[in-house]
Amino acid sequence: MGTELLLGQITDTNATFICRELAAIGVDVYFRTTLGDNLGRIVEAIRLAAARSDVVLLTGGLGPTPDDVTREAIAEATGRPLREDPASRRAIEEYFRKLEREPTAANFKQALIPEGGRAIPNGAGTAPGVFLEHEGTVIIALPGVPREMEQMMRRFVLPELRARRPEGLIIKSRVLRVIGLGESNVVKMAEEILARQTNPTIAPLAGRGEVLLRITAKCSSEQEADERIAETEAQLRQVLGEHIYGVDQATLEEDVVGRLIRAGKTIAVAESCTGGLIGNRITNVSGSSRCFPGGVVAYANEAKMALLGVDQDLLAKHGAVSAEVAAAMATGVRELFRADLGVSATGIAGPTGGTAEKPVGLVFIGLATAESVVTERHHFLRDRLDNKFRTSQAALALVRSYLLGLSG
Amino acid sequence: MGTELLLGQITDTNATFICRELAAIGVDVYFRTTLGDNLGRIVEAIRLAAARSDVVLLTGGLGPTPDDVTREAIAEATGRPLREDPASRRAIEEYFRKLEREPTAANFKQALIPEGGRAIPNGAGTAPGVFLEHEGTVIIALPGVPREMEQMMRRFVLPELRARRPEGLIIKSRVLRVIGLGESNVVKMAEEILARQTNPTIAPLAGRGEVLLRITAKCSSEQEADERIAETEAQLRQVLGEHIYGVDQATLEEDVVGRLIRAGKTIAVAESCTGGLIGNRITNVSGSSRCFPGGVVAYANEAKMALLGVDQDLLAKHGAVSAEVAAAMATGVRELFRADLGVSATGIAGPTGGTAEKPVGLVFIGLATAESVVTERHHFLRDRLDNKFRTSQAALALVRSYLLGLSG
Repeated sequence: MGTELLLGQITDTNATFICRELAAIGVDVYFRTTLGDNLGRIVEAIRLAAARSDVVLLTGGLGPTPDDVTREAIAEATGRPLREDPASRRAIEEYFRKLEREPTAANFKQALIPEGGRAIPNGAGTAPGVFLEHEGTVIIALPGVPREMEQMMRRFVLPELRARRPEGLIIKSRVLRVIGLGESNVVKMAEEILARQTNPTIAPLAGRGEVLLRITAKCSSEQEADERIAETEAQLRQVLGEHIYGVDQATLEEDVVGRLIRAGKTIAVAESCTGGLIGNRITNVSGSSRCFPGGVVAYANEAKMALLGVDQDLLAKHGAVSAEVAAAMATGVRELFRADLGVSATGIAGPTGGTAEKPVGLVFIGLATAESVVTERHHFLRDRLDNKFRTSQAALALVRSYLLGLSG
Repeated sequence: MGTELLLGQITDTNATFICRELAAIGVDVYFRTTLGDNLGRIVEAIRLAAARSDVVLLTGGLGPTPDDVTREAIAEATGRPLREDPASRRAIEEYFRKLEREPTAANFKQALIPEGGRAIPNGAGTAPGVFLEHEGTVIIALPGVPREMEQMMRRFVLPELRARRPEGLIIKSRVLRVIGLGESNVVKMAEEILARQTNPTIAPLAGRGEVLLRITAKCSSEQEADERIAETEAQLRQVLGEHIYGVDQATLEEDVVGRLIRAGKTIAVAESCTGGLIGNRITNVSGSSRCFPGGVVAYANEAKMALLGVDQDLLAKHGAVSAEVAAAMATGVRELFRADLGVSATGIAGPTGGTAEKPVGLVFIGLATAESVVTERHHFLRDRLDNKFRTSQAALALVRSYLLGLSG
């Protein structure tokens, strides 16, 4: 509840918190509705929700101003008059006494509870919540202030719902992160596993230069959910192999930095179109100083020549955006930093600077090692920032492939 | 649409963007509903929404996987069969041709449009949107990928809805972005203006290393709203002056790059703790090659000495995180790239590496010019990534101050 949500002035992080906490205790959330501070529409929404759900959880609209109509809406939707709750009135009086301020009549509006309902104590503010059982549906109202709502969820609502949960069904999920394959390829490779999914379910999602597979299990115990997820994960790992670089919130740079450190290798970066992004991502990982001495951002051709030793004739013949220059940059930066590996990126991030022969989004990346230099050509079709990100993603993936080869 | 939203795995920022943009063109949003990837429930929700609204806008569920059922749901809710849109099929073929990959049958599912509807071109991905007029209601479906959705909203949906809008009250807002002052200072400096706000309203918001002031006007015409906002903006500019670096989606790096180009100055960066982030932000601005030859990421002390000419004794005496080393790095990189300005950053991003004398979050930034070298000391109390970002923000702000001095 809150007009500011429907005006897009704030993002609904309460919904994220509530849904995550409900999922964790096995409550299936099927519908989430956002409404402005309008009595008629809130009444209508409560009636609809009560007709189709076991639990209706509302947040917002419990404040003292005339805008706040959630109590009134519950009363009207259920046909129950509002009654003053004496304990809530005393709590409000006490709150203002501590603040050394006088409560107004509007403040005492917050002590009203629909007949047959209970007040949920608010440990962090003046607005108590509402807990009401009405014709087989539990209706709960909590304040919209995140701190108050979260505390009341943890202390009262979650234990109450957990106690009512039939045979203790819980939902757990785990996200596998896949690099080096497009979404449709992942779906194809995992076709058989996806076709027979029931519990857990597997949802493929397109990431930025990667694919995510979300495995979700609904089970009667956390242990069973973990076992089922582990089984499905093992099947997916069987077909996707080392393309799975991490789980949940893991990042590709964490995986690469970890592999570099374990392999005892150092890496230097030579960046043109990415402008520092590869170095930035590597140094987002705590401990990266053990494998990363540094790099050169060689945006201008002069810098490519003077710092990285890229030959002027090579630049003239192939252009800065070429496999040859990517190779020379990787070799140059490897030598400059006396690193084991040198990785490079040169390309046209856009939106301008493209030609028929070298269009926007054309990128070359290079990797120099003691033994050899390899390059890759990519053509990204995104905007400037996304082309830069996908270039850094491809560069990190190239380093990862090389390190996998070492250990494999 | 998206089970991941109802599991609380992601926060619905698309809803915020869409509601804000709709409010700006005077569309009243009354209901917002979030649903999982379930055909039956989506069909039911589309029918309900179409019955009570002039416009039904859906996002998500247009991807190539079996989970993605939004097209099917629109077809079923409206009783219109899906037909392949030849232009969308060609766009998908073209997209994969450029990517040099083979599309699968699943990819072509994305070319299906309910009969009587039109495809909304997707400039940033493969999934076209859907635009359909059905029994007096406009039904629009957009992808859930924020970049794609935002571009399609700006290019197609908003102009289309604006053209259909009957005369009436509109809401417009404009965000002023303030650098170099904390939120409480901004509030204090603008105290009188904030105290007398009614229409437009002014909401101060804390940004990352900056403060935002959102001015919102509700008027009967766009012209009146623009005039009222302009008047309030002029008052705020009177008290906040050059601290306002941009409006709405402007970035500090755009302002700095613009000022460098207009002043005919070039800049080189020497980054330690930021690891490439400053260069990355500068090169996020299209056209930055005119002022940015490049930089050095000198993460290791050896790189600070060998590439930037930082004296070994200086490092030994003051440590890498010191005003003296920040100054030497800025001077060194300025000379190395023969740039007009050299900017540097050295610090302890955390979470480890701090000492009693040099705690986590301690940062020095430097700016070298032909005339002088200045340094600044900052102590940020955030996590690693935020400490890095705030360091880059302070470095860009320092460059901006210098450029303001030139023009002032």
